[in-house]
Amino acid sequence: MSEDSDFPIDNLPYGVFSTPGTGRRVGVAIGRWVLDLGAVLDDPDFRTPSLNAHLSRGPERWAQVRARLVELLTDERRRPLVEPYLVPLDRVTLHLPFEVADYVDFYASEHHAANLGRMLRPGQDPLPPNWRHLPLGYHGRAGTVVVSGTPVIRPCGQRMEHGAPGPVDGPSRRLDVEVELGFVVGVPTAPGESVPTRRFDRHVFGVVLLNDWSARDLQAWEYVPLGPFLGKSFATSISPWVVPMAALGAARVPGPPQSPEPIGYLREEPHWSLDITFELELNGEVVSRPPFAQMYWSPAQLLAHLTANGATLRTGDLYASGTVSGPNPGEAGSLIELTWGGTRPLRLRDGSSRAFLEDGDVVTIRASAPSASGGRIGFGELTGTVLPAVSRPER
Amino acid sequence: MSEDSDFPIDNLPYGVFSTPGTGRRVGVAIGRWVLDLGAVLDDPDFRTPSLNAHLSRGPERWAQVRARLVELLTDERRRPLVEPYLVPLDRVTLHLPFEVADYVDFYASEHHAANLGRMLRPGQDPLPPNWRHLPLGYHGRAGTVVVSGTPVIRPCGQRMEHGAPGPVDGPSRRLDVEVELGFVVGVPTAPGESVPTRRFDRHVFGVVLLNDWSARDLQAWEYVPLGPFLGKSFATSISPWVVPMAALGAARVPGPPQSPEPIGYLREEPHWSLDITFELELNGEVVSRPPFAQMYWSPAQLLAHLTANGATLRTGDLYASGTVSGPNPGEAGSLIELTWGGTRPLRLRDGSSRAFLEDGDVVTIRASAPSASGGRIGFGELTGTVLPAVSRPER
Repeated sequence: MSEDSDFPIDNLPYGVFSTPGTGRRVGVAIGRWVLDLGAVLDDPDFRTPSLNAHLSRGPERWAQVRARLVELLTDERRRPLVEPYLVPLDRVTLHLPFEVADYVDFYASEHHAANLGRMLRPGQDPLPPNWRHLPLGYHGRAGTVVVSGTPVIRPCGQRMEHGAPGPVDGPSRRLDVEVELGFVVGVPTAPGESVPTRRFDRHVFGVVLLNDWSARDLQAWEYVPLGPFLGKSFATSISPWVVPMAALGAARVPGPPQSPEPIGYLREEPHWSLDITFELELNGEVVSRPPFAQMYWSPAQLLAHLTANGATLRTGDLYASGTVSGPNPGEAGSLIELTWGGTRPLRLRDGSSRAFLEDGDVVTIRASAPSASGGRIGFGELTGTVLPAVSRPER
Repeated sequence: MSEDSDFPIDNLPYGVFSTPGTGRRVGVAIGRWVLDLGAVLDDPDFRTPSLNAHLSRGPERWAQVRARLVELLTDERRRPLVEPYLVPLDRVTLHLPFEVADYVDFYASEHHAANLGRMLRPGQDPLPPNWRHLPLGYHGRAGTVVVSGTPVIRPCGQRMEHGAPGPVDGPSRRLDVEVELGFVVGVPTAPGESVPTRRFDRHVFGVVLLNDWSARDLQAWEYVPLGPFLGKSFATSISPWVVPMAALGAARVPGPPQSPEPIGYLREEPHWSLDITFELELNGEVVSRPPFAQMYWSPAQLLAHLTANGATLRTGDLYASGTVSGPNPGEAGSLIELTWGGTRPLRLRDGSSRAFLEDGDVVTIRASAPSASGGRIGFGELTGTVLPAVSRPER
């Protein structure tokens, strides 16, 4: 049922789908089908237009439902029970899989942070002095998190050209992407409660692919001292499928060495990462293959830091890794790195070249990871097309 | 009915209340009473546990309901209709008045920004080079916006002492407040749509008092280059009453001069501000009276900037002015300014002194503004007590 697919039985990612004339409901992807959980399971959590109810239940329930699905989908005798509720993937519309509560974006790749440091602060230490002591992060705009397929309108805003007397306003000229992994929080916390690294699995349900669209010119002018704002807040795209942590057991690998040793609440034993390889496609051509495994700060360290001050988690919180960039050429997760600030444009197979994104460009991110049975699982596709800027109305 | 109160007939702020044994519903404060709108009006928007439904309706509906309330509360013949639904304020519990969608915090006071610049970057221009060109802002944590009365647990986190070999982790030693005004968005926008300054009144329903609790030691260590994060994300308190913009007509005053002239989308004619005076009380003693009128960037300019990149607004979005600090002694809206970085502790009447907040301290913010009939309206009380830090669990 699921050969040569992103979605073998080892995966079972959750999404929200609809078909013409029917309402949104929760389903699980299997091969080229979606299993309608609202119909096949006697569970009101799945007869809702978001995954939030199931997210809130916690790891014991998550495991029960997953075990039940594996049983339904592998036991030949159950096939008559299941088949009526398998809908072909190419006939469904996929929606935002959960209601995003707060969205936090980290900066966990040493290679990405160092690349940006070399470009923005040449001659200085490429990493900020705090970078190896804590996972840097900031809050993004939850209301502009959109599902794959949603077009992205080129943002307008202020930019300051080098040597110009003052800023100008207009469509961004340095529109970029950031290839990231997003973590979906299920179980909330109480005020003052922090989540130790070993309790990551009690709170995080799964992951999505994430594209943190970025207007580099807006960002460069605004970000000192309060951080990224309009350069990022216009759109963040996520994949429609939430791959459960339970599907990523075989992808757990040791994390890279950390020096200095992390401060108490950031320690973890073992320090782990995920062996996920991304593909960044621009207009159908793969331009980079960023590897997640070498991310300096681990998924559990990011969550421990996010809650270290006692800030509460809500069901539907989304936190992202920051741009995934590896150490080698062709492993960077953003155009600003791949083209070194736009100075070395990419040459595409169609004969054109790109420093940054042009109107009409289609950006697609895919990824895969080892599966429990020795094969691979995929994450589906995260795609978006750049639309021209909208002119401002009269004042 | 409303003499000597924050809530005369010129005010009519909206909140969400409950009484023992009854559910949450929307009410309006009048004198020492709450008028139960769910009961007195035939309108399902008010029989819900948040103001969001009414917020979403837009200015024509907002005006209709306000006119109807004035009629009900001033026409003697209607008194029998109204009296059964007036609940004494001292018998209700007040809740978060709306579901917060995204929370953005600005930095719109020149005096506050310059004071912080002088402390953090002595000898340099106190304002960052972009400060007079755009209203600096960042996204905060919507999930930790809490209503007045909610205790605030002292946050833990990393701080870097001057000259220390590395950071230490522990309860913040520089816990502070920020006196701010928060703006509540009612009417959403479409992707790519920006809100011109003249259309502020189409989108913003009203205002709340806001305390942006801040751990200065956490913030100082983390904020370069991605801005404030854990130093702010543990708690943001708002007042239970949303004062409608319609009640603040008499408080509109010209804004301060702006130089250079703002770039196109930030221009407004006239440039306006609000004549609101705050009181910051520490353990019952007024320690500062910050004036809002001199805020450099206006409420409409903040909204125009927030949407200048086409980022969508949602009903329930909250954006705050940033710390309100005036030019004179005793007008700063934060302890870090009032005590000049803790170097000049405040002496309180009880004989104690404060550089920053101690456990058990009670912080209360009040404010008032001119009313349509020549008197004053108030904003109710925004209060919070500092609780001791919670120890971290074992890893």
